[in-house]
Amino acid sequence: MASTTITIKDIARALGVSISTVSRALKNNPDISAETRKLVNDYARKHHYKPNAMAASLRSNRSNTIGVIVPQLVHHFFSCVLSGIERKASQAGYTILVAQSTESYEEEVRIVHQFQESRVCGVIASLAKETSHYEHYQELITSGIPVVFYDRICTGIKTERVVVDDYAGAFAAVEYLIQTGCKRICFFGADPHLEITKNRKNGYLDALHRYHIPVDESLIKTCDTRQKAMAITPDILEGENRPDAFFAINDATAAGILFACKLTGIKVPEEVSICGFSDGMIAQSTYPKLTTVEQHGEEVGASAFDILHEKIEDAEKGEGAPARNIKNRIVRTNLIVRGTTK
Amino acid sequence: MASTTITIKDIARALGVSISTVSRALKNNPDISAETRKLVNDYARKHHYKPNAMAASLRSNRSNTIGVIVPQLVHHFFSCVLSGIERKASQAGYTILVAQSTESYEEEVRIVHQFQESRVCGVIASLAKETSHYEHYQELITSGIPVVFYDRICTGIKTERVVVDDYAGAFAAVEYLIQTGCKRICFFGADPHLEITKNRKNGYLDALHRYHIPVDESLIKTCDTRQKAMAITPDILEGENRPDAFFAINDATAAGILFACKLTGIKVPEEVSICGFSDGMIAQSTYPKLTTVEQHGEEVGASAFDILHEKIEDAEKGEGAPARNIKNRIVRTNLIVRGTTK
Repeated sequence: MASTTITIKDIARALGVSISTVSRALKNNPDISAETRKLVNDYARKHHYKPNAMAASLRSNRSNTIGVIVPQLVHHFFSCVLSGIERKASQAGYTILVAQSTESYEEEVRIVHQFQESRVCGVIASLAKETSHYEHYQELITSGIPVVFYDRICTGIKTERVVVDDYAGAFAAVEYLIQTGCKRICFFGADPHLEITKNRKNGYLDALHRYHIPVDESLIKTCDTRQKAMAITPDILEGENRPDAFFAINDATAAGILFACKLTGIKVPEEVSICGFSDGMIAQSTYPKLTTVEQHGEEVGASAFDILHEKIEDAEKGEGAPARNIKNRIVRTNLIVRGTTK
Repeated sequence: MASTTITIKDIARALGVSISTVSRALKNNPDISAETRKLVNDYARKHHYKPNAMAASLRSNRSNTIGVIVPQLVHHFFSCVLSGIERKASQAGYTILVAQSTESYEEEVRIVHQFQESRVCGVIASLAKETSHYEHYQELITSGIPVVFYDRICTGIKTERVVVDDYAGAFAAVEYLIQTGCKRICFFGADPHLEITKNRKNGYLDALHRYHIPVDESLIKTCDTRQKAMAITPDILEGENRPDAFFAINDATAAGILFACKLTGIKVPEEVSICGFSDGMIAQSTYPKLTTVEQHGEEVGASAFDILHEKIEDAEKGEGAPARNIKNRIVRTNLIVRGTTK
């Protein structure tokens, strides 16, 4: 494949000049006569010479490449984050290696080692659901490769993080439900040990407390998919003390609740209000459209790159000890009121 | 940043042995005594030595890296394709550089040059909407870097392509509508010059012909977003000779038609049938769920990588002239019947 790629050496040999002359001519160095410069550049163009970025980066011992770890590529929020990283990286002249852990710890460790061997200048990562040991990231940092976590962060390691403001988003959503007259508000969360469940549940609980609404544990469920929501919502709706609102941890779950209400003949939002979390494609496809909390994935990605870029530049200056404090960035959320709430 | 990364040279100096000894010891070469091998490997582990993949790839003049160009990262179908590429590439020991053209020709050219400078061993690309000149891809191929196109392909260049079977998908959808009693079927397409519009429209027209249904040009519209569908559908529904079915080029448009039917009080599927194309998150979030044509993005990505991989290996064997024929892969689609059709 590389047989047609010519090197500076080839050009020098073909034109009967020194390698150094070719190198300087390609950089338009005025020490080289205009005639020779033209000769070299014409030859290089004609033979599709391309400066070897790999060789250049080897000399400077950096690659201008960063590694990005995404738990799942087919996921609207992660696509937004990746897009934000890519835009910023490309503006700053970096290329990005992308790998998905597919939620596997083992795969994540393999990716980290591969990134290390590829001499990336930094890594932006969100943890696999399985991951609860962090030595692989510690090793990266120890070997001088800065790491920034996003969304699913690692609390055991001292490094920068960018997260969505889950607590404030949940608080605002539940506050809005209360202000529009709801009193029995169901919370559908993901696995209780996950940070996003904890933070969103805390926002829910604190909003109830603020408005003196007693917490009813029977209204708090682990349910984070459309299928599960469709399975458990009918029983909840037909039970005693029917809830008058649902706050779901994602839009897919909220869409499942809405679907179940329709099948059960319950009117949304007249009898039951529903609020989701994400604001992806789903929220605009339901009827009525979902009230939801918008999380700014592109901004999460852009912030993560900005922080990493600063760290890479600091490391290159080589001032030694870390001069800056650890920076955590919390990206704000917005409540978007649509048709599933009053 | 690289100050803490040690090299073979550093290990040799620290242990007072030759570089060659260290190199062979690290590869567990039996020519080196077991004692020295242990010494070197222990030291390397303790000091976080990592073999320099960049140096290794420079020696072999290949990077084990492929470049992937995506028009937009925040797009369900492209996320699926990228995921398919990533899975296959990672299994085969390749890393992937990902860049998005954001539908800009200029940006696409920049990315191609950047990939070329990074010495990728191959490129998988889908064209930006703006792109109608292809010299940058021709240059890649001329310089010995194989290219495989997916979805939005380039007809001007002789190279492999992987596409979704748009024609057969559209034919099957419209045939199903006809078989369930529909006779006046609207077609909502994207820009008429795009390949996907042409192919899906041909599938639509041929299905009508097959069942001897006359083509009514007033039922063929350029409309490929939810917003546009919501804007034009009410007039179409209130006009004379109301259509009894809609076949839309994507699910977002189909969801817009469904929304408009609900606002107008028209029953789906009793009075009007609707069929989309894609089967992403949207199709399962509407009420009723959308009948749609499933396109297998992961399979498109996986196929594109497989073909590229074969080409890279062929090129490495360096057998000279291209021995294989150009391979085009057409990935089949499935009609998924749900609630918006009879």
